Amino acid sequence: MATKMEEYLGIKEYKVVGTRPIRHDGADKVTGRAVYGADVQMAGLLYGKSLRSPHAHARIKSIDTSRAEAHPGVKAVVTGQDLARVVEDKVRAVGEGVVVLSNLMKNVLAYDKVLYEGHAVAAVAATSVHIAEEAVELIEVDYEVLPPVLDVQQAMKEDVPLLHDDLTMRSLGEKTDKKSNIANHFQHRFGDVEQGFEEADVVVEREFTTGTVHQGYIEPHNATALWNTDGRVTVWCSTQGPFDVRSQVADVLGISIARVRVVPAEIGGGFGGKFRVYHEPVAALLSKKSGHPVKFVMSRTEVLKGTGPTPASYIRVKMGATKEGKLVAAQAYMAYEAGAYPGSPVGAGAGCIFAPYNIENTLIDGYDVVVNKPQTSAYRAPGATNAAFASETVIDEICEELGMNPLEFRLANASKEGTRRADGPIYPRIGCEEVIRAAMDHPHITAPLEGPNRGRGVALGFWFNGGGTSVAIANVNPDGSVTLVEGSPDIGGTRTSIAMHLAEALGIPAEEVTPMVVDTDAIGHTDGTGGSRTTFATGFAAYEAAQDIKRQMVERAARFWEIPEDDVVYEDGAVRSRSDASKSMTFKEVAGKLGQTGGLALVGRATVTPRGPGGAFALMIVDVEVDPETGKVDTLRCTIVQDAGKAIHPSYVEGQMQGGVAQGVGWALSEEYIYNGDGVLTNASFLDYRMPTCLDLPMIETVIVEVPNPGHPYGVRGVGEVPIVPPPAALANAVYRAVGVRMYELPMSPGRIMEALWSKDGNGKA
Amino acid sequence: MATKMEEYLGIKEYKVVGTRPIRHDGADKVTGRAVYGADVQMAGLLYGKSLRSPHAHARIKSIDTSRAEAHPGVKAVVTGQDLARVVEDKVRAVGEGVVVLSNLMKNVLAYDKVLYEGHAVAAVAATSVHIAEEAVELIEVDYEVLPPVLDVQQAMKEDVPLLHDDLTMRSLGEKTDKKSNIANHFQHRFGDVEQGFEEADVVVEREFTTGTVHQGYIEPHNATALWNTDGRVTVWCSTQGPFDVRSQVADVLGISIARVRVVPAEIGGGFGGKFRVYHEPVAALLSKKSGHPVKFVMSRTEVLKGTGPTPASYIRVKMGATKEGKLVAAQAYMAYEAGAYPGSPVGAGAGCIFAPYNIENTLIDGYDVVVNKPQTSAYRAPGATNAAFASETVIDEICEELGMNPLEFRLANASKEGTRRADGPIYPRIGCEEVIRAAMDHPHITAPLEGPNRGRGVALGFWFNGGGTSVAIANVNPDGSVTLVEGSPDIGGTRTSIAMHLAEALGIPAEEVTPMVVDTDAIGHTDGTGGSRTTFATGFAAYEAAQDIKRQMVERAARFWEIPEDDVVYEDGAVRSRSDASKSMTFKEVAGKLGQTGGLALVGRATVTPRGPGGAFALMIVDVEVDPETGKVDTLRCTIVQDAGKAIHPSYVEGQMQGGVAQGVGWALSEEYIYNGDGVLTNASFLDYRMPTCLDLPMIETVIVEVPNPGHPYGVRGVGEVPIVPPPAALANAVYRAVGVRMYELPMSPGRIMEALWSKDGNGKA
Repeated sequence: MATKMEEYLGIKEYKVVGTRPIRHDGADKVTGRAVYGADVQMAGLLYGKSLRSPHAHARIKSIDTSRAEAHPGVKAVVTGQDLARVVEDKVRAVGEGVVVLSNLMKNVLAYDKVLYEGHAVAAVAATSVHIAEEAVELIEVDYEVLPPVLDVQQAMKEDVPLLHDDLTMRSLGEKTDKKSNIANHFQHRFGDVEQGFEEADVVVEREFTTGTVHQGYIEPHNATALWNTDGRVTVWCSTQGPFDVRSQVADVLGISIARVRVVPAEIGGGFGGKFRVYHEPVAALLSKKSGHPVKFVMSRTEVLKGTGPTPASYIRVKMGATKEGKLVAAQAYMAYEAGAYPGSPVGAGAGCIFAPYNIENTLIDGYDVVVNKPQTSAYRAPGATNAAFASETVIDEICEELGMNPLEFRLANASKEGTRRADGPIYPRIGCEEVIRAAMDHPHITAPLEGPNRGRGVALGFWFNGGGTSVAIANVNPDGSVTLVEGSPDIGGTRTSIAMHLAEALGIPAEEVTPMVVDTDAIGHTDGTGGSRTTFATGFAAYEAAQDIKRQMVERAARFWEIPEDDVVYEDGAVRSRSDASKSMTFKEVAGKLGQTGGLALVGRATVTPRGPGGAFALMIVDVEVDPETGKVDTLRCTIVQDAGKAIHPSYVEGQMQGGVAQGVGWALSEEYIYNGDGVLTNASFLDYRMPTCLDLPMIETVIVEVPNPGHPYGVRGVGEVPIVPPPAALANAVYRAVGVRMYELPMSPGRIMEALWSKDGNGKA
Repeated sequence: MATKMEEYLGIKEYKVVGTRPIRHDGADKVTGRAVYGADVQMAGLLYGKSLRSPHAHARIKSIDTSRAEAHPGVKAVVTGQDLARVVEDKVRAVGEGVVVLSNLMKNVLAYDKVLYEGHAVAAVAATSVHIAEEAVELIEVDYEVLPPVLDVQQAMKEDVPLLHDDLTMRSLGEKTDKKSNIANHFQHRFGDVEQGFEEADVVVEREFTTGTVHQGYIEPHNATALWNTDGRVTVWCSTQGPFDVRSQVADVLGISIARVRVVPAEIGGGFGGKFRVYHEPVAALLSKKSGHPVKFVMSRTEVLKGTGPTPASYIRVKMGATKEGKLVAAQAYMAYEAGAYPGSPVGAGAGCIFAPYNIENTLIDGYDVVVNKPQTSAYRAPGATNAAFASETVIDEICEELGMNPLEFRLANASKEGTRRADGPIYPRIGCEEVIRAAMDHPHITAPLEGPNRGRGVALGFWFNGGGTSVAIANVNPDGSVTLVEGSPDIGGTRTSIAMHLAEALGIPAEEVTPMVVDTDAIGHTDGTGGSRTTFATGFAAYEAAQDIKRQMVERAARFWEIPEDDVVYEDGAVRSRSDASKSMTFKEVAGKLGQTGGLALVGRATVTPRGPGGAFALMIVDVEVDPETGKVDTLRCTIVQDAGKAIHPSYVEGQMQGGVAQGVGWALSEEYIYNGDGVLTNASFLDYRMPTCLDLPMIETVIVEVPNPGHPYGVRGVGEVPIVPPPAALANAVYRAVGVRMYELPMSPGRIMEALWSKDGNGKA
């Protein structure tokens, strides 16, 4: 029986949804049978290796590949010139619209300038990995070295070196003639922010900087390609978005997508960083030249130097509240590093920075800025973590000034259905208040925290979640089992959560559904696994495919019973006659009669592009202990409260929450790219780039709040991204409570903590 | 413009259908990239080998596998006992219905008796092929050898050894208690055959025997299986029917089909012989025991001794005609060898034997008889070639006695729409008359044939063609290309012929469609590639998927133009507004707007189980020269005339016609299994089993007749099987005209020709 609260929330009773069946791909994953991209093997395979720039900023004067080509084990060599020709053709044909395409190509293989250390400039295909590694060193590149720009604030100054000769700033939606490292400046303005600050009794304004961090997926990028003699290109790779890879490869190679097939291998993590192509088109070009399939697998150093990362940023936040605790004005200045080419997630950051709060007067300025670092990729709620670090620290300071409980303050100002977000949209039903209330009710919030140098912090975060397009095809077998065909690579258990949608809708066990992820030729367009969209949208498609199956099951049963279709109803995993109680068949029974009722094939099909993915909120409570001797921050206890809408498979929701927090803790406390003055990354290994390990983290407690998303049949909201948003702010707030210093820079590494402690004690760094 | 005749025949004008686009899989096939079953590789693969019985008939007293198991390279051993346990469980649960299943299992691995030389009794999985070959020899089997029964006429006698202790004859649809090697006796009777013969002026009755021949596909059987730790079994194999393999593997292993996935590799010929499983379940069992994937690839000798063949047969035909040339009665006694287990195609033979003719009084007795030879498999128009050899020789003799032209006689008696076939069904629109007329019009029939020992023969043949169930899924890409997903293994170019259905229906080029054949988890139930059904039924599904796409394209265009859907029509590869001539978009343009009109995915889906595959007729004209010194028959010229309904891709229709004739010539002149008295096959290699090569055959001229099948949107009839039906009879009739001897036994090998010549000259064999 649904409780009154559950009824209010629109919660239904489910048989499959909300249970925890074993994952369909579990056996393959734990026994090592699952085939990842690096496992791809085929006859005649060659091995590719890229030559990468040792300079952060340089002009390529010439490349001599002759010594590499002369190596007996080398079967093909490519340089950026192979791509430049494609761009030239496109520019002639299309004009300015190809700038993004051209940037994509230049990032794949630089052909005029190198813009970061590690930028690929050429590649070879050879008969062994070792020969390939040896042969790239035989390629001679003549560089004109230029001074690098390594910081967003520096890059925005006048008279600094410009990365791009042809980049002119867009400003407030208009193209300008101004040559700049600032690719774009946009603004969101609502109400009257100056007036708002005048009404405020407390105004806090702070500056924040965050470092460059990498997604840190365990599996390096890989790509194998075969350019067949019929002009068709097949690419095997680990990707979040096979259809994205298909269109990028087609674009970079200047061929139609009809000629590209992308086979997604199993994937060892992506977090947003496995959408963009790197070696895929290079492998294809080398395959075309050599006549062989060519495989690339990056080293960890290549991953860190050449892919990802998420942007470093500079953010100023100013917020004002009345003494009664009402937020009346908020302003943000957000400058995000895009890396080598425009496209940082500052827009998303701007959408999230004040999203948890109902504030009448807001002004946000966002800047997308190029610097001599690798082009940034999406990373789990891209842009939002940087933003929340700033805004949630300021909120905490306001609460402190007002002497108010941080959760009560947040609840009083929380966004809800009808609130206008500071970037414009009006919220549908959201769970912000419910998340805060669940945190207030959680034992952690009132648990004693004894001992010196310990403190508890909280922070709240928002993420939009994505919708997009998904397809599901479901084949009913005569034994009542169902195979489910989908195009969403399974990163975190979505085979199962999507299969559960189908099972719930059909009224059969999840174990009766066998899901499989297929290639881009074998399924209709399905957007990538990212934006927390997969369980929401591909699950939605599976739900609709089930509806399609149910309609056909009704037809089959009506034919079997020789009664009109409208006398047959599908309910609770069975069909029955409305008018004759003696006529009833289970799903399995109808399946067993397919041969007698029109043919053994019964195929459910759905294509969906659902609106209303339903934004999600997460709140973190964290206890830390700071070692005042070393500056090391230990997380003692950690609770993440999150609105999942409806948790289809709670274990995987919990897994996402824990994973997001773990990454957020790393970002907050230890992870960062450390460049020397020449723009050379000095910590490009997992030994030196400090991701937290199990030993660095406590058990992460999870509290799933379920405020059903009205835009999904089971109320699902995306869950993958928002848990990474609150950790840095929550930890900063906890550190403040532990040792009395406010941290405005990420990561809050021991050195920075020590500097803050010394500074607080009037004892600044020597 | 359609001619008057074309209009009469219902012939439409097509843009794609009837053209000859390059085959989509051509590049892979000619460059060696296509992955056949023997090419399957994976980590940890073991190699399987079967131990086969040296005896044609024996009881297995015991099997000792201990020495094989002790071999360090052997990872698992199985015997029939592993399957016997499954049968015992099933018999307890289901009862008699499992006899066929039990026979299937016993054929896979004998567990009580071996019934033919080469019958598999045990198998090993080892770390190399060589160890596997060595290790099977270490298995010791204690046999009680029994006398074999090697001939259908012998097997039907009283007091001969019985193959099966538990086989009792079915007679005229009823079960009897009679233990026998005759599994079934059935009868088709229409009119009054005795009365008919009384009315006849000419009656000819003859006896015929045909040998055991093998399908002779170039690729040996192969199977790789992985029994995963989650209980799921994946099988990679070359098969005509992945869904048949799935259900057989599930049945033999006693597991649900939900746990079996069959991945069809490319296939190097099947001809009906690649539906039944041999090593597939054995590989699965060995995988379960060893924890590794296990692969089997048969040698040619194993193929010949353990798979296929088509039945030897004994047929008596009696036909009567009036002196005006009207067939008034026909009677047949047909006894076909089933091999070791019941299930010969005698029923199909009975349906075909008099099928080309309208005869009022008919009586057919059919017998399905077990003998100590491998279990017969389907082989291209199974049962019909044996039958036509008999009936078409008798027809030729009647024509001779009546002094009538064999084609005019056939035309006068030809079946047409409304004729009742001798096994019951009434014909829909068929092309029997048109085929005969086309032969009469062909220059070959009147071409001079000079020189001694030369003769020309004709014969007519019929095949039903199959219907069955097929599924097609078609994904429209934003560039206007389409991927087509199907479950029909492509043996003879059906990827292309099916893609052409989709292209024609959508009004786009065939090259814009990329077809792919997927596994049993990735597509709905699709019957196997056999029975000449694939272009007909899966093509039909592709046509219906196109209709589904067109409906959605109309919706998308209506949305784009913001007009009602019923104002939009899809015609000639484009949508247009009925009311506003300015609104028109090509298929490619609509595809390019998918993102704006509801989402990038547009998926066409169809499941079809079409009735009316449309029977087909073929007529062969052949000129031979017989060497009276050696008895060798040379085919000098050969023309095959066949009703294709509508030839979707004429090259592939011609290829099927030529291939069928080539096989028919081999069957007629040289191919046969030669057993010694102990039932040991003495010619189990391609050196000794004489298939015709290019050098043995003239160019085979083809004449495609097109009488559209009313049961298919483009009029397609199956084309793959019927061309094998007339050759033996046509050659026998030609031999008679060349040297004056009637041949009643197949093959008409040089020895038999010489015997016939000696016998004619009163000079019988010494």
